[in-house]
Amino acid sequence: MTEKSIYEQAKVTDKPGEECGVFGMYDFDGSDVSGSIYYGLLALQHRGQESCGIAVSDTSGPKGKVLSVKDMGLVNEAFNPENLEKLKGDIGVGHVRYSTAGSSTRENAQPLVLNYVKGTLALAHNGNLVNAPELRRDLAYTGAIFQTTIDSEVIAYYIARERLNSKSAEEAVGRAMGKIKGAYSLVIMSPRKLIGARDPYGFRPLCIGKRDNAYILTSESCALDTLGATFVRDVLPGEIVTITPEKGIISDTSMCISREEHARCVFEYIYFARPDSYIDGVSVYHSRILAGKFLAMDSPVEADIVVGVPESGNCAAMGYALQSGIPYGTAFVKNAYIGRTFIKPKQKTRESSVQVKLNALKEVVNGKRVIMIDDSIVRGTTSDRIVHMLREAGAKEVHMRVSSPPFLWPCYFGTDVPAREQLIAYNRSVDVICKIIGADSLAYLRTERLDEMVNELGICKGCFTGKYPIDPPEEDIRGEFDK
Amino acid sequence: MTEKSIYEQAKVTDKPGEECGVFGMYDFDGSDVSGSIYYGLLALQHRGQESCGIAVSDTSGPKGKVLSVKDMGLVNEAFNPENLEKLKGDIGVGHVRYSTAGSSTRENAQPLVLNYVKGTLALAHNGNLVNAPELRRDLAYTGAIFQTTIDSEVIAYYIARERLNSKSAEEAVGRAMGKIKGAYSLVIMSPRKLIGARDPYGFRPLCIGKRDNAYILTSESCALDTLGATFVRDVLPGEIVTITPEKGIISDTSMCISREEHARCVFEYIYFARPDSYIDGVSVYHSRILAGKFLAMDSPVEADIVVGVPESGNCAAMGYALQSGIPYGTAFVKNAYIGRTFIKPKQKTRESSVQVKLNALKEVVNGKRVIMIDDSIVRGTTSDRIVHMLREAGAKEVHMRVSSPPFLWPCYFGTDVPAREQLIAYNRSVDVICKIIGADSLAYLRTERLDEMVNELGICKGCFTGKYPIDPPEEDIRGEFDK
Amino acid sequence: MTEKSIYEQAKVTDKPGEECGVFGMYDFDGSDVSGSIYYGLLALQHRGQESCGIAVSDTSGPKGKVLSVKDMGLVNEAFNPENLEKLKGDIGVGHVRYSTAGSSTRENAQPLVLNYVKGTLALAHNGNLVNAPELRRDLAYTGAIFQTTIDSEVIAYYIARERLNSKSAEEAVGRAMGKIKGAYSLVIMSPRKLIGARDPYGFRPLCIGKRDNAYILTSESCALDTLGATFVRDVLPGEIVTITPEKGIISDTSMCISREEHARCVFEYIYFARPDSYIDGVSVYHSRILAGKFLAMDSPVEADIVVGVPESGNCAAMGYALQSGIPYGTAFVKNAYIGRTFIKPKQKTRESSVQVKLNALKEVVNGKRVIMIDDSIVRGTTSDRIVHMLREAGAKEVHMRVSSPPFLWPCYFGTDVPAREQLIAYNRSVDVICKIIGADSLAYLRTERLDEMVNELGICKGCFTGKYPIDPPEEDIRGEFDK
Amino acid sequence: MTEKSIYEQAKVTDKPGEECGVFGMYDFDGSDVSGSIYYGLLALQHRGQESCGIAVSDTSGPKGKVLSVKDMGLVNEAFNPENLEKLKGDIGVGHVRYSTAGSSTRENAQPLVLNYVKGTLALAHNGNLVNAPELRRDLAYTGAIFQTTIDSEVIAYYIARERLNSKSAEEAVGRAMGKIKGAYSLVIMSPRKLIGARDPYGFRPLCIGKRDNAYILTSESCALDTLGATFVRDVLPGEIVTITPEKGIISDTSMCISREEHARCVFEYIYFARPDSYIDGVSVYHSRILAGKFLAMDSPVEADIVVGVPESGNCAAMGYALQSGIPYGTAFVKNAYIGRTFIKPKQKTRESSVQVKLNALKEVVNGKRVIMIDDSIVRGTTSDRIVHMLREAGAKEVHMRVSSPPFLWPCYFGTDVPAREQLIAYNRSVDVICKIIGADSLAYLRTERLDEMVNELGICKGCFTGKYPIDPPEEDIRGEFDK
Repeated sequence: MTEKSIYEQAKVTDKPGEECGVFGMYDFDGSDVSGSIYYGLLALQHRGQESCGIAVSDTSGPKGKVLSVKDMGLVNEAFNPENLEKLKGDIGVGHVRYSTAGSSTRENAQPLVLNYVKGTLALAHNGNLVNAPELRRDLAYTGAIFQTTIDSEVIAYYIARERLNSKSAEEAVGRAMGKIKGAYSLVIMSPRKLIGARDPYGFRPLCIGKRDNAYILTSESCALDTLGATFVRDVLPGEIVTITPEKGIISDTSMCISREEHARCVFEYIYFARPDSYIDGVSVYHSRILAGKFLAMDSPVEADIVVGVPESGNCAAMGYALQSGIPYGTAFVKNAYIGRTFIKPKQKTRESSVQVKLNALKEVVNGKRVIMIDDSIVRGTTSDRIVHMLREAGAKEVHMRVSSPPFLWPCYFGTDVPAREQLIAYNRSVDVICKIIGADSLAYLRTERLDEMVNELGICKGCFTGKYPIDPPEEDIRGEFDK
Repeated sequence: MTEKSIYEQAKVTDKPGEECGVFGMYDFDGSDVSGSIYYGLLALQHRGQESCGIAVSDTSGPKGKVLSVKDMGLVNEAFNPENLEKLKGDIGVGHVRYSTAGSSTRENAQPLVLNYVKGTLALAHNGNLVNAPELRRDLAYTGAIFQTTIDSEVIAYYIARERLNSKSAEEAVGRAMGKIKGAYSLVIMSPRKLIGARDPYGFRPLCIGKRDNAYILTSESCALDTLGATFVRDVLPGEIVTITPEKGIISDTSMCISREEHARCVFEYIYFARPDSYIDGVSVYHSRILAGKFLAMDSPVEADIVVGVPESGNCAAMGYALQSGIPYGTAFVKNAYIGRTFIKPKQKTRESSVQVKLNALKEVVNGKRVIMIDDSIVRGTTSDRIVHMLREAGAKEVHMRVSSPPFLWPCYFGTDVPAREQLIAYNRSVDVICKIIGADSLAYLRTERLDEMVNELGICKGCFTGKYPIDPPEEDIRGEFDK
Repeated sequence: MTEKSIYEQAKVTDKPGEECGVFGMYDFDGSDVSGSIYYGLLALQHRGQESCGIAVSDTSGPKGKVLSVKDMGLVNEAFNPENLEKLKGDIGVGHVRYSTAGSSTRENAQPLVLNYVKGTLALAHNGNLVNAPELRRDLAYTGAIFQTTIDSEVIAYYIARERLNSKSAEEAVGRAMGKIKGAYSLVIMSPRKLIGARDPYGFRPLCIGKRDNAYILTSESCALDTLGATFVRDVLPGEIVTITPEKGIISDTSMCISREEHARCVFEYIYFARPDSYIDGVSVYHSRILAGKFLAMDSPVEADIVVGVPESGNCAAMGYALQSGIPYGTAFVKNAYIGRTFIKPKQKTRESSVQVKLNALKEVVNGKRVIMIDDSIVRGTTSDRIVHMLREAGAKEVHMRVSSPPFLWPCYFGTDVPAREQLIAYNRSVDVICKIIGADSLAYLRTERLDEMVNELGICKGCFTGKYPIDPPEEDIRGEFDK
Repeated sequence: MTEKSIYEQAKVTDKPGEECGVFGMYDFDGSDVSGSIYYGLLALQHRGQESCGIAVSDTSGPKGKVLSVKDMGLVNEAFNPENLEKLKGDIGVGHVRYSTAGSSTRENAQPLVLNYVKGTLALAHNGNLVNAPELRRDLAYTGAIFQTTIDSEVIAYYIARERLNSKSAEEAVGRAMGKIKGAYSLVIMSPRKLIGARDPYGFRPLCIGKRDNAYILTSESCALDTLGATFVRDVLPGEIVTITPEKGIISDTSMCISREEHARCVFEYIYFARPDSYIDGVSVYHSRILAGKFLAMDSPVEADIVVGVPESGNCAAMGYALQSGIPYGTAFVKNAYIGRTFIKPKQKTRESSVQVKLNALKEVVNGKRVIMIDDSIVRGTTSDRIVHMLREAGAKEVHMRVSSPPFLWPCYFGTDVPAREQLIAYNRSVDVICKIIGADSLAYLRTERLDEMVNELGICKGCFTGKYPIDPPEEDIRGEFDK
């Protein structure tokens, strides 16, 4: 403690961050849902690793009694047999959270549990509002106090206030959706209802599942497979679904805010979502295979082997191989025990973060011309090391292909893309980037391919084009409330 | 884990619980206050051991940036050199909290830190409101949401709402005081002011200190001694004091709610406060000596030695000895390492909780007629064991004297006295109680002596007489919001 | 705590356990080695996840002052920037340990650090002695006391005793090797020397690396890549190497116990070692590709796709695809966040351990005839679930191929194969096993292929054939000393 | 972490450290003893607060199976309902340990659990050997290895070696006692026997208790009271007692090493032991009262009140008051929540360690001439602060009396008295010390009074006179093995 430390905890990644994963469950037979929510969150863990939480209620018990556990860290770290068992209730919501450093506090862990005029609510949110500052200001001027810096608190206030003029909780949610702007997939537990809602653009995914007599809301369908549940359908952009034992799933279309143009985050398909998930009818796996095929069509190169940067580059690499006829191979061994962070010496040492995480398989690449596929490049801090690693292992040529277009603009809708100045593609040509990372050739996925890749579903390409479906705030306010 | 455990964590006490201790500090020279707040809270630790917290702000930094650490456990457990050092700021508030089991959660730890229309507030509260349910209802009906079950959140809402119509934070505090009823001593940090307030009855103590160019607000003056600070004066019942570098201590009398009758909690003098504290001009030590003297006058008995049940019975025992001329002695050794809890076997074993904590000194009591003084009896669960312990050690007679009147009624103002049915004195004569605890004689302090004991200051005797200074709620709502 | 818990921590695996990984480093330039040992252990983490430790010494400091940190859990859990920084020294050894439940205690964590007649030793051991009980008995009868149940303590005793009659520490190691029988790769730190030794059969791997002016001993070469070090050579079976600044690597052949027949553990190639490691000149990756090819040659079947059970089945699947011409694919998504254990409900629930860890990619297998490759089947507890998962995802046929022969006998040389009764292949034909796991066909690697697979290096096939290179103890004494 | 911390954990004490407390229990009815050992260790916690442990065995189970829990910290920190419940066994030993900083490691926690030729032993030791270096050397030269730096390991080796030539474990203990020199009270658990032994000088206490059909060995009798057990007798200096169900307590006098002159550590009476303990027939409380009386006789002074520095000065203060007729009072409030350590700012601040722990009662001392009694002064680092505190609180005069002679020499028998240079009394006259601490007068207990104080029992006065009952080692080797 007494001297300047030479070590620090470090992350090894050059990927955009996802904001969150949400999960809700209501078992009409009255069985406890916390165990299943735990497994659901495990299956959604890739969407957020900084904090997590589960809140449950017993619909046959005293109205509005909510039990919750929230903590920093992974689902497997926050929960243990003891605290999981205490979470008794047949309805509940769960959340996994990614966050930027500043707001990575216990206070901001979700679900947000609150008392309001009609009892209790527990709310889990994935996304980012663009008008949160104005809404906070308006709320504050009518006497609101804020104990967190998360958008969920703003949403909760609007639901609470609209509830006074509404016949039901879902109507209040609908009215609140009239005020909030941006990206949101919500799962809300009221004392006797589970409510799901998705913003009119459909930025973030949300779908419905069923197992026996229990209904589930989840960010991704992969969580349904984990639970042995059946996929029912996606929640539509702008839709509010209400789940009650009396009526099953109700979707009050009068409350739906219809909108012709959707704006799904295409990065869900490219990187965030698990390949075994289906989002709005499109297989994530398949879209990545397609991306790889498009790269092979649009940016072909002669080579002996196609490899992916694990794990996220593997699908596109397989697509490239299929399209090009060049054999697919595995060029890297990834250390499965690094986790989110490891100890990194601050001063210059021989060990690099990338080497700790990855190693090239000499046996595979030695003497070969290698096509190496990664899903994205953000700052470019690791690509050069990986290219170098292949060369050290004997690769004769290294051709890098990226299964997404270059990042050029920030995202205001829940993806943690850093400021433009930190993006390697900002103000740099592909040739310059290629030189920086030391590859023999470099090509990105063409932006035009994106729509085809997701079957013309309606996507947001803001981070590639700067054209956003909703006007962004005038200044970049992300994380402002932490200051 | 797999079998029913035979052990559990247990507390060893039969004392009423205190709700909280508050502390605030503003150093006009700009030095960090978190270290001093830490020592202040250590000195107030006897007022609450379940959770604690410190929130600080740097008045020269970005307005309203608040740093805080809150956790379950003792001050020495929640804070370490690392997290204390990170709390950089020249203004801050701290809190130690006692709580009943149900609401003993991390969410309820104080200070409450919040954003509102005028920036940030951090609020520490000692006391209990009697109209919290109505206030919560009113707030909820105008769109408030509640994330905790503590009264501080209610108070914060009123301050936030009144702030919209007030010229200053202190004016908003004053207006909020017009709505809230009950016991409260408040320390509030706004971005550039430290504010202290005390309810018009003066239920809970609050005083002002000074060290160099720094001002302090603290529940008890003993914390000033620990810091090497000077006692300035008590905050008056109903008074609001505002501390700023420009004007020092301001007390806007226009905002004072004057009231002729005060209602200080007499149990602060009898048991809660540290004997080295002075509350509203009266030495806690001296009041306990007096209580012992009164017992000797009113309930004399022939004996060889007067002893106190440590630690809280020692002062009164000394007073009894002084008055009666019977020698004072030390009859017990208390285990200094038990802390708040220890492991107790659930099933009947030979070891008792009392024996683990206390042991009688045979050398002192053998063959003696002993007068044993304790400050209070709540449930009576330990007195019989202590009397028995003295007899085992050879005492010929054991005469118990209690330096407070019998508990007969609940407290609604921040003292955790259990329900009437659990009070040993409820529906039982002193003779019956004497038999239950197995003493040769038993006497309590006469209620009439209380005023004299505290120099006719104006006290609440509700728990002894059932006559409360403010009408209690119609039903006992303590802890309701946890359900 | 008070009721029978319905949850427990569970592991998800049906693989034989490896005993340990060892690592040593000596930097002749005097730089601290603990950071590099930390990275080396991270790279060896797959060899043991239950406990780990590092012991270092400063060769320029007081002779024999050893600093060490040992703890339960992963390398990333046991070490943090603070405790790593305190491990100052230019010579050191590290260890990762796998263990069966009974002996999974902190006392048994390695390296073993001890004082003996010539100062201090720190010893890290991978393997299992077959004559430990006799040796312990002999030692005890001459006054030895044992504080652990690990073989390292027995080895340490023999080194200490032989040291009295030896001119050097390495000579003492050589003499001790004359007494101990079984599998061992040792890395030993004496005050001024780093010593490596390998049993005459070469059961467990050990190799030498170099970086700048520092020498390294490591179980696997993959750790050298992580450090950016160069592979020098393998330590030979029966060899003792001594590393000192004066003489670099010395191999005193007079101390080598030569033996014509070697008995490398073939499971290092099949499953334990990382595919990027080379052991005794053979690429682990290549041997797995070969195993897949042999399966394709010996047990062909018509199908649409070949897939591996991740991660360890992937290499062999690729070999099968290469040989058969059937396309390679990825059929499973593995949850990267499960770690060693997760919470499993004890009572029957819908979620299965296998589903929590793996999910099938419908997009890939739907409507396909699938060849699924796994590296081994021990108890067979997960294979049926995985086969079932593929069918649920739409696979028309599932043909399982196993890239090792059936386990039929226990291992006494450091691999945790359970008792025969628990082995699915014990007393069952391949057809019966095929029915149990519900596959359309099943085939194992033929035992005859093993030698070819590792280039006729000389391997132990005891667990497949029951023919052991050294006579096993008369009774299965593994883990006896814990009782 | 990145900057030099301004805070550190600090201890507040100027007392000599005690080495350890030992406890053993054997329940002939077969009930679990771990719970009772836990309470016993709680009662002995004042003898050592750095680490603790319990080892138990089930005499009806497999021979020599020992379960143990050892950890750093207090008994209440190391044990919880879960780990205590797992310690199932009807025989067991426990230990609390004080240690100097260097050797404060988990490896050195006791009891030492070991396997040797006759099964298992668990050994708990209080004291310090003076010939440990020679013994370690002898052992090492016959092939011993050492994994700790505690004397217990040396003792264990001798027992193990002598066991080979002995008919019983106790005979081996007796033979080992022929080799080891110095201070030791031992409690040893062999598979079917509980053995207690005390060195021929009786440096450290050890006594026998009984409850129902269970026998107890404990450092101090206060632990018997806690358990509701009966005091049987002290173990005699040089005696070995063996406890078995067949024969109860056996004391084989043939093994007793008789010695005419005893050398009990007088500091047990003055400071270490709890006042409710009796050691070798003398009440610790009474001996302290006597010390106070002697001070009043030998060093009288006119004053208004006699006060003790809590807690350890209180008994002597009461003795002084009784003898002198000057009233006894309580002048200090001690913070009960400080524990062993608290956070202390490294740089100069206004808060002092002493003020954090103690506060003077103005009400008591203002305007008074005060006699202040403390049990000892080691470095003198706190006495000046306490004297100053009394003056600040208004004391007109402060006369300090110390109920032990001045420390002038180190202790080699288990008390942690620092090197001579650090002792305030070394090379300084009482007058000079009086000036340093700022008192109006200062007097120590006369060395001649010590024998009278403990009823002429036979004591060691080495730390006051430099005349030791056994020749000390030529150089101060305390703690050497940590280097």
